[in-house]
Amino acid sequence: MSTKRNIIVGQSGGPTAVINSSLAGVYKTAKERGFHKVYGMVHGVQGLLDEQYVDLATQIHSDMDIELLKRTPSAFLGSCRFKMPEIHDNPDLYEKLFGILDKLEIEAFIYIGGNDSMDTIKKLADYAVLKGHSQKFLGVPKTIDNDLAVTDHTPGFGSAAKYIAASTKEVIRDALGLSYNKENITILEIMGRNAGWLTGATALAKTEECDGPDLIYLPEITFDMDKFVKKVKELVEKQKNVVVAVSEGIKLADGRYVCELSGGGDYVDAFGHKQLQGTAAYLAGFLAGKLGCKTRGIEFSTLQRSASHMASRTDINEAFMVGGAAVKAVDEGDTGKMVIIERVSEDPYTSTAGLFDVHRIANAEKVVPREWVNKDGNYVTEEFLSYVKPLIQGDYPPFMVNGLPQHLVLKRGNRK
Amino acid sequence: MSTKRNIIVGQSGGPTAVINSSLAGVYKTAKERGFHKVYGMVHGVQGLLDEQYVDLATQIHSDMDIELLKRTPSAFLGSCRFKMPEIHDNPDLYEKLFGILDKLEIEAFIYIGGNDSMDTIKKLADYAVLKGHSQKFLGVPKTIDNDLAVTDHTPGFGSAAKYIAASTKEVIRDALGLSYNKENITILEIMGRNAGWLTGATALAKTEECDGPDLIYLPEITFDMDKFVKKVKELVEKQKNVVVAVSEGIKLADGRYVCELSGGGDYVDAFGHKQLQGTAAYLAGFLAGKLGCKTRGIEFSTLQRSASHMASRTDINEAFMVGGAAVKAVDEGDTGKMVIIERVSEDPYTSTAGLFDVHRIANAEKVVPREWVNKDGNYVTEEFLSYVKPLIQGDYPPFMVNGLPQHLVLKRGNRK
Repeated sequence: MSTKRNIIVGQSGGPTAVINSSLAGVYKTAKERGFHKVYGMVHGVQGLLDEQYVDLATQIHSDMDIELLKRTPSAFLGSCRFKMPEIHDNPDLYEKLFGILDKLEIEAFIYIGGNDSMDTIKKLADYAVLKGHSQKFLGVPKTIDNDLAVTDHTPGFGSAAKYIAASTKEVIRDALGLSYNKENITILEIMGRNAGWLTGATALAKTEECDGPDLIYLPEITFDMDKFVKKVKELVEKQKNVVVAVSEGIKLADGRYVCELSGGGDYVDAFGHKQLQGTAAYLAGFLAGKLGCKTRGIEFSTLQRSASHMASRTDINEAFMVGGAAVKAVDEGDTGKMVIIERVSEDPYTSTAGLFDVHRIANAEKVVPREWVNKDGNYVTEEFLSYVKPLIQGDYPPFMVNGLPQHLVLKRGNRK
Repeated sequence: MSTKRNIIVGQSGGPTAVINSSLAGVYKTAKERGFHKVYGMVHGVQGLLDEQYVDLATQIHSDMDIELLKRTPSAFLGSCRFKMPEIHDNPDLYEKLFGILDKLEIEAFIYIGGNDSMDTIKKLADYAVLKGHSQKFLGVPKTIDNDLAVTDHTPGFGSAAKYIAASTKEVIRDALGLSYNKENITILEIMGRNAGWLTGATALAKTEECDGPDLIYLPEITFDMDKFVKKVKELVEKQKNVVVAVSEGIKLADGRYVCELSGGGDYVDAFGHKQLQGTAAYLAGFLAGKLGCKTRGIEFSTLQRSASHMASRTDINEAFMVGGAAVKAVDEGDTGKMVIIERVSEDPYTSTAGLFDVHRIANAEKVVPREWVNKDGNYVTEEFLSYVKPLIQGDYPPFMVNGLPQHLVLKRGNRK
């Protein structure tokens, strides 16, 4: 019998197309390194507090299952949006959680998530040190938004960027095919509350046979409705067909989100974030009224974070790598850290996994630097594109069954 | 020099992911059958009337280009939404158009399109007979909506259905991954003004590892808001996570589109069709208010007709086949007809191309038969699924260049 005990792994926050590739990396590496059992929290820490977990050996039976897992979007284990209270506010909750970890003989706790999840890792690692618990706590970065500090980029971002760029190319072809001597404005709405990485990625559609979007508005830059209308009017008079990409998080100078003007933004999640939707629809309606031409708002919506069928091979492989690196780290005694991706070289692009103290990461949002946006604040620069391009390279074709991508799905009967 | 003269081909109406595969079929077959030149109308009949056309030999240089064309979404030549007037209302326009055809030494005119385009073929064929012009006129079916009569199905439908089903699977995974002990309603809005073929195709997501949507509302069935709310409420209380697919064209008993309730449906196109958008957003907002839970509206929007990257091989091949069959037909003297697809056998699925008098097709919309919808009017039957399943089979992977699907694009400098 192994001298090592067990690992538990969870997924948290908004899903990505490759979050399960990190899970696969954790599982495979834990097995290779001789950990006894690999448990999965079902719906993250929130589920774990309800003792919802599975032994992953009951779910993953072969290398084929691992490959299928890597091609499965959304959190295989189920995710949660659960904010850990401060330790002094609710010590009982911490005691309960560590009680469960002790019962399951957990040696290491790995959490795949974004900013809020790294905050969880920080608090749990601190609590363990404070109370003398032996468990190690390691964070694995994940978010399509690419807004985590320190890491060169986050797993999930490259695939979302690839899907967005590919879909932008297709939508542009569609718009051009239909407009003949007629004005036509298309507004694309892209995810990213405060960080414009994904919205900027629409510029990747600019290729040898496609002009890409005409204007790109990131949430980092205050949105000026008058300037916007003036700019679109100029373009539509010149070229008839205009395609604009906007972030769901663009804000007016008075601090209101543009989507709030349409009555959207009402729903507030557990972290106090407003649900942003309807920016493109609002702007499309507004421009139709102002300019009297045909407009269409298109939201890529949750497709941009769940389109595993258009995942980037680079992204899938890096997601797997950081999962594995977390296991290696805890196995070597690290705790309270997050795995980061370091860009080793540009040409050819190579990357490696590093470690960073989670105390210095949590809750710091990385936004697009001002110098990577043009002077007018309506497009990204070549530097931005050079940064993103390597991350969308390579494909990871889905396993097609009866004409549709197949996924690995949690067998609920085996839960808990 | 060839004894045969020239062919001209155009594309009309809303694009599909495979409309260019039909164009490729026309081009390749015309060359094989010894036609001299193959012209393309740029933006259909409307462009042709402005003498906008290209010699396709300036655009397609190799079999590789033909393969790339088959993988290019939207109308390569540009489309139009142009309604031919009645002959007696505007004989000058007909004279002008036939003058251009004579000048270009056109022997046959092939039009790839939907109901409105078949009306164009009918009128032009009639006019030629009436005035003793020798040109032949042939229609090639195309529409994601699958609403053309007589043909078993239309090219474009299978790929749209495949994209919709694949995306529905991904969205369902996304929704399930995020909801833990919390009510969550997702409303998917699918294209199809009067015909629910595509909305019904969301049921294809029901596979061995996915339950598919819970409810499906087609435009063929009068939409009852009270019944709908009651049904969703029941389900959400039982299972928390509910996914509903609705057609953009669902209507209340009083004849209003649901999307009109939100202030949408204002834009009217050249054929007098209202632009329908906002059904899902409206219903999501309405349910959030009524049931007090998290909701999200997702429109697949133009992506469902332009996602060549998820095209069905069956569909691409059939689109190519009907393009070729049109050339064969005009070469053998047919006119005033539309190519149709005939289903030869179910298992294995095989199909062939036939011909049908366009006078008996034009402007007749084929909707989903009532018996292919369940008694409650909120799901499709097994018969519906058996009909659609063969049409989404097989893949046609895009040619990826620098991480993105590559397209063949009209070289504008060569345009007339």
